[in-house]
Amino acid sequence: MSELVLRWGLLSTARINRRVIGAIEETDRSVIAAVASRDGSRAAEYAKTHGIPHWYGSYQEMLAAPDIDVVYVSLPNAMHVEWGMRAAEAGKHVLIEKPIALDPRDVVGLEAIANDKGVVIQEASMMRFHPQTSLLRDLVASGVIGEPRWAHGAACFSMSGSGDIRLDPDGGGSLWDLGTYPVTLFNAVLGRRPLEVSALARVGTTGVDLTFAGQIRYEGDVLGSFATSMETWPSNNAEFAGSTGVITVEDPWLFPIGVGASGRVTIRTSSDAEGSTSHRSVADANAYVEEVTAMESMILDGANEVFPLRESATNIATLTALLKSASSGRVVSVD
Amino acid sequence: MSELVLRWGLLSTARINRRVIGAIEETDRSVIAAVASRDGSRAAEYAKTHGIPHWYGSYQEMLAAPDIDVVYVSLPNAMHVEWGMRAAEAGKHVLIEKPIALDPRDVVGLEAIANDKGVVIQEASMMRFHPQTSLLRDLVASGVIGEPRWAHGAACFSMSGSGDIRLDPDGGGSLWDLGTYPVTLFNAVLGRRPLEVSALARVGTTGVDLTFAGQIRYEGDVLGSFATSMETWPSNNAEFAGSTGVITVEDPWLFPIGVGASGRVTIRTSSDAEGSTSHRSVADANAYVEEVTAMESMILDGANEVFPLRESATNIATLTALLKSASSGRVVSVD
Repeated sequence: MSELVLRWGLLSTARINRRVIGAIEETDRSVIAAVASRDGSRAAEYAKTHGIPHWYGSYQEMLAAPDIDVVYVSLPNAMHVEWGMRAAEAGKHVLIEKPIALDPRDVVGLEAIANDKGVVIQEASMMRFHPQTSLLRDLVASGVIGEPRWAHGAACFSMSGSGDIRLDPDGGGSLWDLGTYPVTLFNAVLGRRPLEVSALARVGTTGVDLTFAGQIRYEGDVLGSFATSMETWPSNNAEFAGSTGVITVEDPWLFPIGVGASGRVTIRTSSDAEGSTSHRSVADANAYVEEVTAMESMILDGANEVFPLRESATNIATLTALLKSASSGRVVSVD
Repeated sequence: MSELVLRWGLLSTARINRRVIGAIEETDRSVIAAVASRDGSRAAEYAKTHGIPHWYGSYQEMLAAPDIDVVYVSLPNAMHVEWGMRAAEAGKHVLIEKPIALDPRDVVGLEAIANDKGVVIQEASMMRFHPQTSLLRDLVASGVIGEPRWAHGAACFSMSGSGDIRLDPDGGGSLWDLGTYPVTLFNAVLGRRPLEVSALARVGTTGVDLTFAGQIRYEGDVLGSFATSMETWPSNNAEFAGSTGVITVEDPWLFPIGVGASGRVTIRTSSDAEGSTSHRSVADANAYVEEVTAMESMILDGANEVFPLRESATNIATLTALLKSASSGRVVSVD
């Protein structure tokens, strides 16, 4: 096959795949070459349903295949690092679902192997690739709200089904599933180092947090706070307040707009005596297509990271500190 | 004078007085009888400007006057308890600006003297007397959002002037000035006991918090979080998220709507398969008039408290725990 087309292998048959499959189908320089599952018949069935040329009844078998350039790891959270490492060791580029790891040291390990093997490893945090996130970061960086003072976000939905994988003590919970959004957004948009965190959680019978309230102190004493929940009627919004303005975002995490539309960003500022309100939105974009396109550009054109792996490391460090704070009842440093 | 008209004495010439003066002028059973200031010429000037019949060049002198029924204490926060106690000891009913005290034990002291002297003591937290607050409490109590999971609020403005009294280490800071709003609202609307808190603050050069991020855990693991700031472009909103619905409030703290209009309460619920959105608002009401009318009803008709002093005590205990958490970096119990 031409070197200008990336052959993707899907590692797992998780539901999130369909977003990435759709995105790969929309881009010119990627094709889906294979899917792997530990259950061969499931892999075969999945390949047939989605028109995927090859299937493998084991993950390792697909990683050994020479005609796979990129592996998309959509396994349960606790398996992200192991299979991301194995894919990189096999010389594949890797896109790993968020959260990329449950321990920040593992992100350092992933960085090391990416450098060693000369492959691209990225966290599939689709929001980070969407132009709305860049718009927010650029607005704050340009001083449109003056000195930022605090950020708030809510990322909540109501989980259906008691057997949900998000109830699994190993990598489950609302923080790992939803907290990655506000933490990733705040870290990217504020562009400041998170120093310490504080948190309270409502823990369910399986031991994972069902609802989580987190606070982050950034350098310069900018404060961030968020609520995540898997047990409320959906509430999704974010706000960035600064000395001379406030930005409110209707769909900060891009569900459901991540699959093709653009949301609404409202800016209130003191640019005139009365204060003024304006609305901004970016051109319609599919965050998953942006994510796949970024992989193509990095791998095929040597482009820089849109979402630096360094940022993933900081985000994971923030999330682990938040969990530690919730269980210890203490402010915890972000290392 | 007729026993059916309350003769009010203003203790201080603070700016907030004008709201209460306006409210007293609007009600039938209250009149402003006097104003007191430690500066006699200021009291005289203030009385003249506002058409107040009597003035006193000392607080104690006004408290000794037999023709004063109710004293409104609008002194700086750190003086609220002392002069509230003195007024009650003099047999006056007392309305004390929020926060009524800086230590929950002082509220217990105020309760004791109110019982002992047979007088009414209330905290002038105008929001608590407004029908919008009652509407929110009733909506949550009626189960419109199912089981409440978390609440969030922002109460922020940009302070002008470096000599602002709110920068005074003794009772100043954004938590004491603005934090009373979300804490009072959450406590009233959730109707649950606050158990523990966690907080981060951005402290300015005078030692008071300029921006404050607080979290509260209520019984049943309902979580509350809020941001207050005296150094951002105004942001004021609140949200209550539950298992089957979300309530969003445009002007939860009633500034500026507390002086005559009503705000907008948006309810999104799962009452039908698609979910539905409705807007609710209460009839226009002036929160300060409601506050004065509540005093009249309690004193003249023996009516029950709209805003129980017990609630004030809980609110102050929550606020002091929040401050303790921000300075200690630990989760602190609300005693």
